Amino acid sequence: MSNRILHKGLQAKVMSAEAAAALIPNGAVVGMSGFTGAGYPKAVPIALAKRAIDERLKGKPLKLDILTGASTGPEQDSVMSLVESQRFRFPYQGDAVTREKINAGIIEYQDMHLSHVGSMVRYGYYGKGKNNLDFAVIEVTKINEDGTLVPSSSCGANNVYFEHADKIILEVNSWQDERLEGMHDILSVSAVHGSRQPIPILAADDRKGSKYWSIDLSKVVAVVESAHPDRNAPFKAPEEMHKRIAQHILDFFDGEVKAGRLSKHLTPLQSGVGNIANAVLVGLNEGPFDQMISYTEVIQDGMLDMLDSGKLVAASATAFSVSPEGQIRFNKDIDRYRKQIILRPQEISNSPEVIRRLGCIAMNGFVEADIYGHVNSTHIVGKGIENGIGGSGDFARNSAYTIFMSPATAKDGKISAIVPFASHIDHTEHEVNGIVTEYGFADLRGKSPKEKAREIIDKAAAPEFRPFLWDYVKRAMKNPSAGLHSPHMFEEAFSFHTRYLQTGSMLPRK
Amino acid sequence: MSNRILHKGLQAKVMSAEAAAALIPNGAVVGMSGFTGAGYPKAVPIALAKRAIDERLKGKPLKLDILTGASTGPEQDSVMSLVESQRFRFPYQGDAVTREKINAGIIEYQDMHLSHVGSMVRYGYYGKGKNNLDFAVIEVTKINEDGTLVPSSSCGANNVYFEHADKIILEVNSWQDERLEGMHDILSVSAVHGSRQPIPILAADDRKGSKYWSIDLSKVVAVVESAHPDRNAPFKAPEEMHKRIAQHILDFFDGEVKAGRLSKHLTPLQSGVGNIANAVLVGLNEGPFDQMISYTEVIQDGMLDMLDSGKLVAASATAFSVSPEGQIRFNKDIDRYRKQIILRPQEISNSPEVIRRLGCIAMNGFVEADIYGHVNSTHIVGKGIENGIGGSGDFARNSAYTIFMSPATAKDGKISAIVPFASHIDHTEHEVNGIVTEYGFADLRGKSPKEKAREIIDKAAAPEFRPFLWDYVKRAMKNPSAGLHSPHMFEEAFSFHTRYLQTGSMLPRK
Repeated sequence: MSNRILHKGLQAKVMSAEAAAALIPNGAVVGMSGFTGAGYPKAVPIALAKRAIDERLKGKPLKLDILTGASTGPEQDSVMSLVESQRFRFPYQGDAVTREKINAGIIEYQDMHLSHVGSMVRYGYYGKGKNNLDFAVIEVTKINEDGTLVPSSSCGANNVYFEHADKIILEVNSWQDERLEGMHDILSVSAVHGSRQPIPILAADDRKGSKYWSIDLSKVVAVVESAHPDRNAPFKAPEEMHKRIAQHILDFFDGEVKAGRLSKHLTPLQSGVGNIANAVLVGLNEGPFDQMISYTEVIQDGMLDMLDSGKLVAASATAFSVSPEGQIRFNKDIDRYRKQIILRPQEISNSPEVIRRLGCIAMNGFVEADIYGHVNSTHIVGKGIENGIGGSGDFARNSAYTIFMSPATAKDGKISAIVPFASHIDHTEHEVNGIVTEYGFADLRGKSPKEKAREIIDKAAAPEFRPFLWDYVKRAMKNPSAGLHSPHMFEEAFSFHTRYLQTGSMLPRK
Repeated sequence: MSNRILHKGLQAKVMSAEAAAALIPNGAVVGMSGFTGAGYPKAVPIALAKRAIDERLKGKPLKLDILTGASTGPEQDSVMSLVESQRFRFPYQGDAVTREKINAGIIEYQDMHLSHVGSMVRYGYYGKGKNNLDFAVIEVTKINEDGTLVPSSSCGANNVYFEHADKIILEVNSWQDERLEGMHDILSVSAVHGSRQPIPILAADDRKGSKYWSIDLSKVVAVVESAHPDRNAPFKAPEEMHKRIAQHILDFFDGEVKAGRLSKHLTPLQSGVGNIANAVLVGLNEGPFDQMISYTEVIQDGMLDMLDSGKLVAASATAFSVSPEGQIRFNKDIDRYRKQIILRPQEISNSPEVIRRLGCIAMNGFVEADIYGHVNSTHIVGKGIENGIGGSGDFARNSAYTIFMSPATAKDGKISAIVPFASHIDHTEHEVNGIVTEYGFADLRGKSPKEKAREIIDKAAAPEFRPFLWDYVKRAMKNPSAGLHSPHMFEEAFSFHTRYLQTGSMLPRK
């Protein structure tokens, strides 16, 4: 037995992943760890997927409701979706197989603001067990002698699942470096209305909680040993397009500093996952700002560079999700990084209370934005849902700056990211401050919808789409059916989308 | 001079409303008090409207940018809109003339979450003055000897406008009862990123601030005496329809108490303005729940009944907006009511931090909801914008329960409140828990979009529209263009709206 399981009582619960998976009844509601490709259980979900094959042959397909922190990795989402053993999935996913099954109508998916996950589970909206959920399956780095748990590479909603599951399965993953111990700051929020206190985080790098998970050990029914690596995407150097988008954001910050609205340390940075976000981090690392700090969901490779250069003094998140190369680099210098990086439960990392207090700068990708500043973060026309809203709403709705960024076109210029009416709306005109593409930064602050339309079309839309967007606005201005506050023509509001579906391009034929 | 102006220095600044209005330059950005028909300035806006006539005759139309707490009354919004002297209006309105001018494209209007107003003004998104805004025009009840100010019947964003205006005009309104003194709890939020502390409100009836506004007296350029009454809508007894909607909500609470999720004191109540909200209050006053408390924006007549009966122990809001009859009743018993009612700045009454901490129950009206639970609070097809989002987003996004309520049809059954795709989206699928009409309560918690569609159509839609909504969903399920997560047909998504515009009814002709 591994020397990672030091508690005597729990040593007696060690069993194979198959035996642990067999404990979970068909139809169960299961809370799992995992946020991005970090800290999700691997051995038990693989065993569940294999068991699903046996159950299907017996004519009783295994159908589970799976709740996680956010996305996970292929050992959980891909394989369990492949065998169709996820009936219901919550609150976020980013997996190709899972996406396909959701868009095929096989998996029911609830796409939810990540800061709400804890409270919704506490309020009892999932599961009928004594404590709400039937099972929790949580990856940890180590079980201490006293039964406290060293968290893994993400915190996610583990605190809630530990508390609200009737039974707990622990996966002790020896791939995780034991020296993660001390990197986490575990605070929890009370379930009891009227008893909640202020969240005591006053600065992005405050540590006010415990280094360990403390759980009701009597609920642990199995301990499984695993050694599977986390699976995060390899780091790609920013392309020219991403650098251009990033440069507009850096120029905007520069203007804010000159206007006296921001200091050269900026305010705590939140940045979404992906190439544009990484390009912004690369740009910030080379730019004039210093002593920055990050209050975000996910630590990416770009932040390691900024910690190394000293541009970033600390980074707070709920998941550590660097590339395999980033992981090697992190482990090599883990004793320093552990002091600079803080991992928190997602209800703290994404807390509206803390985000508003700190005055964060929220930078997230978008799929579509419409001419009045409504943003679609989730749905691709012709395909369906992509991933989900994730934490973008938590940050967008509460930050001092709310910026959405994307290339202005997709599919070789056939799809415009700026459309008359977004085909799905995740963020509304009431909270979006900036829409950025490679063409420019549309600054929506202090503007009415028509003033926003001018800014978005002229600064952020691809030039070849601008005449068609202006044509829509100008004709809508003559159409009284939606009023002249945010003019629309309902018969044409989705004309870009229907044209794309019919012709393969949002651009009208010449 | 009235005995309401006790500070010597400010006595010297007393002048007529016309003289004060003349101080405001054309093109100025002006922050005004006012939240609902309560506590807005009356004499100076009337004088501005009259001055606008002279200026127009001189060929230089008076155009001001007017920021308030929320809606105001006819002495401000109606008359200033009538003479077209509001170029830009922010963050909410509920006035017939203003609405008409916005929908005619004459007034630029920014419709904004009310909790954000303070921070957006502080960040400097409005005005180019030394302190951002050029002027503040604020109604108060009294000026104390030491220069502190007894607030009026609403707090709104006054703290922010006092702080961020270069010059201040005070309207001392002797119509307001002097015994309002002591009813307010004035806390402010720091503008400086990194210096904000937790908001110290731990219970809905906590008082942690000052009874008075404290301002920089050197900025006061005029003190104007007025005696105009506040103007709030008369109270209407709930109609049968409103009672039916209210009953579904009361039944829902009953179920939550039985399920152990709510105590019989419920959690702090937020309720929007209007007949359905009042019907819910009437129902709560007659129902089985007791020792309730309210954490809301606006005190309405129904809450006075609940305070009288003892069902409600206290009510926190930012505005006191009762009918003329309610006002007489309030003044008669003001010494008791003053202890039970707390008025706060809107960034505290609507604070996401406090709302989430308290676990409020948010109950707001809606214009349209779509089959997947997106809510339109603001736009009426064929007309344009109605009022605005107000504080509904602050509460919807952060409460423990987020309920939207409306009759299932409008215009004698020709308009359905449930549509395939909402023609404007103010609240997304990610935050709406319940959609209620006279037909039932659609409980959206823990459901995927397709599960929500079934619930909404079968429980909340008017029966005569159900077949057409089901027809849309079923055909969309065969249309792969939006995927099967939340299926749509973009060419028909607004078909209910276009049919209404063409035929006067959303129901297809037989």
